[in-house]
Amino acid sequence: MSELDFTTAYAVSDSARAEYLAFAQAAVRAAGQAVLPFFRTQLAVDNKREQGFDPVTEGDRAGERRIRELLAARYPDHGIYGEEYGYSAGNGLTWMIDPIDGTRAFVTGMLHWGVLLGLFDGQQPVVGAMYQPYTDELFWGDGRSAGFERAGERRALQTSGTATLSQATLATTGTQWFSAQGRTQFDALRSRAKMTRMGGDCYLYAMVAMGSLDIATDANLNAYDVLGLIPIIRGAGGAVATYDDGNPSLGGTVLACGSQALLDDALAAVRGAT
Amino acid sequence: MSELDFTTAYAVSDSARAEYLAFAQAAVRAAGQAVLPFFRTQLAVDNKREQGFDPVTEGDRAGERRIRELLAARYPDHGIYGEEYGYSAGNGLTWMIDPIDGTRAFVTGMLHWGVLLGLFDGQQPVVGAMYQPYTDELFWGDGRSAGFERAGERRALQTSGTATLSQATLATTGTQWFSAQGRTQFDALRSRAKMTRMGGDCYLYAMVAMGSLDIATDANLNAYDVLGLIPIIRGAGGAVATYDDGNPSLGGTVLACGSQALLDDALAAVRGAT
Repeated sequence: MSELDFTTAYAVSDSARAEYLAFAQAAVRAAGQAVLPFFRTQLAVDNKREQGFDPVTEGDRAGERRIRELLAARYPDHGIYGEEYGYSAGNGLTWMIDPIDGTRAFVTGMLHWGVLLGLFDGQQPVVGAMYQPYTDELFWGDGRSAGFERAGERRALQTSGTATLSQATLATTGTQWFSAQGRTQFDALRSRAKMTRMGGDCYLYAMVAMGSLDIATDANLNAYDVLGLIPIIRGAGGAVATYDDGNPSLGGTVLACGSQALLDDALAAVRGAT
Repeated sequence: MSELDFTTAYAVSDSARAEYLAFAQAAVRAAGQAVLPFFRTQLAVDNKREQGFDPVTEGDRAGERRIRELLAARYPDHGIYGEEYGYSAGNGLTWMIDPIDGTRAFVTGMLHWGVLLGLFDGQQPVVGAMYQPYTDELFWGDGRSAGFERAGERRALQTSGTATLSQATLATTGTQWFSAQGRTQFDALRSRAKMTRMGGDCYLYAMVAMGSLDIATDANLNAYDVLGLIPIIRGAGGAVATYDDGNPSLGGTVLACGSQALLDDALAAVRGAT
């Protein structure tokens, strides 16, 4: 992340925002189709150890290349920051790509992974989209509204109304990525939450937006792991921060909640634990 | 489980086995359709706390009732043991039902859950099937062969050829269900495995059968949590045991591996840890 040096917010009009959102939806769908052939393929399983063929890496690269091709054709002046092919500065707006968020789920044939794409204005996320091509689930948002589409059926996303940690369901992808202090802070959440679940990557954040989970939190995220998810959660009525009051768009140890009241309660628990 | 007292194996002919397998496939599909309306419903989310309406419980009951209706019509003399409605003895064969295996995933909107049905001859599983109606994934097996079907496409299931723990991917639904001794045994597996994943319930066992995961292990399973999965794993080339050399068809702390060699290696690690 040291190469990323953002200091000012690039202005985006409402009409441009709508155009970027439509682009993000189409781009994650296209990347998902590029990734899908590498999922649960017997060829991939047979070869992954013996011949140096790693289906996740190949899938990651195919997905990111597809989005970069679409960006080169449509927005050649925009910046790009992707997991596989790094950072190239642009005219002030930067697309962030995680072609397969949830690689460990992907490689074991599980379902909780997705293609992530978000647009960053230098300070805040503008639009974001997540797509799981195997289940055909598309989540998107622009910080003002958010939606879900599957098999041609669309609906708005709306977070739960849960306002207190003691009533909240909590999930993290895994506790092993937390620092010692972060683990103490996570344990403060866990000890007060109603139920805690492990595992899920980007799906946890999608479920917060859908209202079926109240809190998702993960340690040491990269910007491209989370930027695309923030406009979905905020657009559905949720709130996102980091444990240390950083900008969650740039990653870090992130806390995403279904409401501002719940985020305030959860942050109080986290910050009281140190 | 104390009410279950099985001492002899009821003989099943090859033609009867094929008939039971076809029934199991149809029954989990039917139960899945009964369960699906309770998944990710906004109504359910709105009401689950305030009005005592628990979508998982309602979904569980609807699924198990559907299977019991089909059994009453087709095999009225068979025994039934289900999570929601308990045990009724039969003529020697017993169907075991877990209408939603993975209830915590179900209630949080996640995807790793399924309807499980297995037939027990008093000593061994005869046939088993697992269905996830949202993703339309059907897994089945009869201990001799196993298959997968989705959107009309069928293929055989085949476990991975991984033979040693050090090369194996390992997963458990969660470490919190292990006893202190079981946790020590699980840690012996984890410290030697190539990668360890948390979360997944019945999907972990389906992924072992599919060959994309090498080892699934869970503590303190009930018979209906695992009986239906064993014929799928064995039929795909895998092997299943308990840590304490019990009959895994009756539950316990279960270890399911992609090969007998891997099971032997994993059991040596587990039993050497105590």
